[in-house]
Amino acid sequence: MSAFEETYNGVPLSKLFPEERPGWKGYVEWEKYPERKRIAAEILKSKKFSGFPEFQLEPLPKTNPVLIGHRWKEYHEALGLKSIVDFSWETVQKEKHDMLHLLDFPYNGETRPQYLLGDGKITQNKHHFIRNHGGVPEIDEDAFELEIGGLVKTPIKLCMKDLKDPNKFPQAEVTVTIQCSGTRRREQIEVYPGDGDELINAPWGEGAIGTAVYRGVPLKKVLKYACGGVLPEAKHLEFIGADTYFKKGEVFNYAVSVPWRKVRNNEEVLLAWEMNGEPLPKIHGGPLRMVITGYIGARSCKWVYRINALEEPSMGPVQRQEYLYYTQQVGKQNVKISNGFSIQAMPVSSAIISPKDGNVIIHDGKIALKGWAYSGNGSWVERVEISPDGGHVWYAVPPENLTKKHYHAWRLWEMEVPVDAEGWLEFCVRTWDSSNNTEPTYVRSAWNWDLHVTSSAHRIKLYSVNRSRPATAARLKQLEERGKSFFPLTEPLEFTVEPYEEYEAVCKLNPREPED
Amino acid sequence: MSAFEETYNGVPLSKLFPEERPGWKGYVEWEKYPERKRIAAEILKSKKFSGFPEFQLEPLPKTNPVLIGHRWKEYHEALGLKSIVDFSWETVQKEKHDMLHLLDFPYNGETRPQYLLGDGKITQNKHHFIRNHGGVPEIDEDAFELEIGGLVKTPIKLCMKDLKDPNKFPQAEVTVTIQCSGTRRREQIEVYPGDGDELINAPWGEGAIGTAVYRGVPLKKVLKYACGGVLPEAKHLEFIGADTYFKKGEVFNYAVSVPWRKVRNNEEVLLAWEMNGEPLPKIHGGPLRMVITGYIGARSCKWVYRINALEEPSMGPVQRQEYLYYTQQVGKQNVKISNGFSIQAMPVSSAIISPKDGNVIIHDGKIALKGWAYSGNGSWVERVEISPDGGHVWYAVPPENLTKKHYHAWRLWEMEVPVDAEGWLEFCVRTWDSSNNTEPTYVRSAWNWDLHVTSSAHRIKLYSVNRSRPATAARLKQLEERGKSFFPLTEPLEFTVEPYEEYEAVCKLNPREPED
Repeated sequence: MSAFEETYNGVPLSKLFPEERPGWKGYVEWEKYPERKRIAAEILKSKKFSGFPEFQLEPLPKTNPVLIGHRWKEYHEALGLKSIVDFSWETVQKEKHDMLHLLDFPYNGETRPQYLLGDGKITQNKHHFIRNHGGVPEIDEDAFELEIGGLVKTPIKLCMKDLKDPNKFPQAEVTVTIQCSGTRRREQIEVYPGDGDELINAPWGEGAIGTAVYRGVPLKKVLKYACGGVLPEAKHLEFIGADTYFKKGEVFNYAVSVPWRKVRNNEEVLLAWEMNGEPLPKIHGGPLRMVITGYIGARSCKWVYRINALEEPSMGPVQRQEYLYYTQQVGKQNVKISNGFSIQAMPVSSAIISPKDGNVIIHDGKIALKGWAYSGNGSWVERVEISPDGGHVWYAVPPENLTKKHYHAWRLWEMEVPVDAEGWLEFCVRTWDSSNNTEPTYVRSAWNWDLHVTSSAHRIKLYSVNRSRPATAARLKQLEERGKSFFPLTEPLEFTVEPYEEYEAVCKLNPREPED
Repeated sequence: MSAFEETYNGVPLSKLFPEERPGWKGYVEWEKYPERKRIAAEILKSKKFSGFPEFQLEPLPKTNPVLIGHRWKEYHEALGLKSIVDFSWETVQKEKHDMLHLLDFPYNGETRPQYLLGDGKITQNKHHFIRNHGGVPEIDEDAFELEIGGLVKTPIKLCMKDLKDPNKFPQAEVTVTIQCSGTRRREQIEVYPGDGDELINAPWGEGAIGTAVYRGVPLKKVLKYACGGVLPEAKHLEFIGADTYFKKGEVFNYAVSVPWRKVRNNEEVLLAWEMNGEPLPKIHGGPLRMVITGYIGARSCKWVYRINALEEPSMGPVQRQEYLYYTQQVGKQNVKISNGFSIQAMPVSSAIISPKDGNVIIHDGKIALKGWAYSGNGSWVERVEISPDGGHVWYAVPPENLTKKHYHAWRLWEMEVPVDAEGWLEFCVRTWDSSNNTEPTYVRSAWNWDLHVTSSAHRIKLYSVNRSRPATAARLKQLEERGKSFFPLTEPLEFTVEPYEEYEAVCKLNPREPED
């Protein structure tokens, strides 16, 4: 006990909130100890914390990390858990490379565009986005134990060795796109700001999505072979993660659930320990995480160490009062959690990754675009369409320009779109999935107070310079002859764009004023 | 043999194309006899038939039946199958009540709006829509036999008694919405006409959808218990119906397929013999039909008498070259069947059933609307929203105003929407399903050459007369005092709407012309 350690009724915090299992660093058990939760709430209530950060009403800082999680760090520190905060950032340094750090703690990192499409359809582990809700626990695989209880025939505990034993459980390898429901949230904020949540709803762009091959065992098989099955009244499976979570002054372990109907579909709900052929990185939930195909990423619980079969969906705050989809008329003035429905399966969506919004494109009548397209819930991407005119005319991406179909993963696409027009144009992408669902046309169509699931057609503005038009070709040649670049677009030209003799000749043909 | 019966090489048609099974009227086997198909094609080629009907470029006839299937009847007659045509219409008379007959043969009948919502969420058998692709065979249940073959361990034949024996196969009762992909096609035609298919793509309104409780056995269980399962290479189940089908001068039995992945989900693919507690009506496929939940109605093969486990989807024309979803840029000038993707699972959609498009509504600040909302593929309806202003502001239908959730059936809804504005307003409905998918905003968003799956927000025009506005209340009172109706809207008023003294007083306050 350090000389300066805080105490509660004379008991040091580390004794009140201990790391009680050898080999499980950064893990505090909250759910089994109501008294511990009560004391933590009392301590939190007695302290002052930094204000909630405001980042929607002003331009985002250009720093990296973009936002700092002061308040969430202070919550941890108030309970003597500063080492959790420190380990999170250390793990980012070790396991991640060149991310856009949207929030330093809890760590939220976005994949940069060049890595989203750069390595084929699989996102490398070091580039895959992260949306954590708390710190990163460091759990020794040999000390790790998964507990399964609730409405199962036989509650059990399993070590990793048991789980990984192919004689005990059949293994599966599934290519899965995991997406945060905050993907492309920036677009909603740009139209109308929304919820200022305690746990920052990060201003994600198009990179809060990624695809990996996960190896593990279907939860269904573990329930069947190890627990003798679930009881008939079990309708939901709750996953408890080793991370610490805060909500409205209370403290929890991360908890979410998915329906038994989903778990029944074998490879759609995995207990996974491997990601792209490598051991699951700590920051991605190692040694063990859930992988729920076609669902919002928040259900793919990391560091899952307890599973409960329940009659009802989990009452953990992440399941009950977050990741809800509200209507446009619900907001600060009237919101109740019962107004929203739970975001579980994900809809069809897509994004243009290249070129970037605002780019100037010099072309010969065609502009090349690239991006991703995804649909959840076992629906696959059937068709991707690009509009070069804000959504009136659509061009289908030829099938050979899409990566192959997956039940649970995105398709990357690329296309050269015919473009005659010049100047600022609005390009958009929309996708049709195997259920014939497509995306709403405008951001407003899907705007919601919590700023989740930005599923409308993704739009970017491009400035088109069509070199196959003689006047444009001539201008570009003029610039080239003078050793000048067309860029930046807004830099004034230094030479007269039309010699006065030519101008006068035109005036003779088309007089400047009426003749009578 | 009648003295006037036509012959082919001296053989009468009834011998060439016989009803070969006792108790199976109106059924000719084509798929097992390539020579029979060849001769039929030759006969068809040698005859002249009525032209293809045009009904998209002019207003629809106000008759009932709306369209007459001359050509399809003539195809049947050319092969000596006129009795099939006659029996179809006789069955309509017997089994159906007060339908909008869109096409008399093959019979296409739409449920009228009052029956869509009139009996709660279940559509009565006599009112449920029908979209047949050929005649109605009349098969004696005791003579009926289902054959299962292809890539199964043990090919078998089953009689209805076997199928209905609960000791042989576990039964299931499922509430299922079946929808024709032509539902609301009228809206697409009104914007731009499309495919003039040989088999008329009927101009359906909002009533090509209905909900019933089907009883039967999951196909999965029949394959498992009667056939010992499917072989590992079996990826699709093909269903052959006893009806005769024509395409590009050739003749077929109706054939479609669904993936084994779908069949695996137990109650999602049923062999059904009961509809809303009654024996399956003949016109609905009695004695036995497929019921495929969440899929386009065309897969729920009627009079199914053969099932084949296949490696690939069925090559029957209905599966291969119809019910395809094309892009906006595909049409008569360039269409190939490989341009479209197969419509199987259905997207989220909805319709306003009351009031009717074009109605005048006198109200006190609120207008009541009713309708249906549906999503396929096991997704359920989470939220229905109404816009009274063409799609800018949306009101969520309160949860208590929706019938209960089903995995495979629609929800009916009703709502009083606050309306201040007067005059012509555009109301629309859109639905969000459990995968967070919603409907495109405009008909153009989802227009396609084959005019399938009109999934955009359904729009109706209403003329709003808001009695809570004093000027409107006064006008209505004036009419009432004179014993006059406000209807029809376009009937001129016979009295001066504003006494000249009042008008002059107003002119003094607001001069008619500038004063300087």
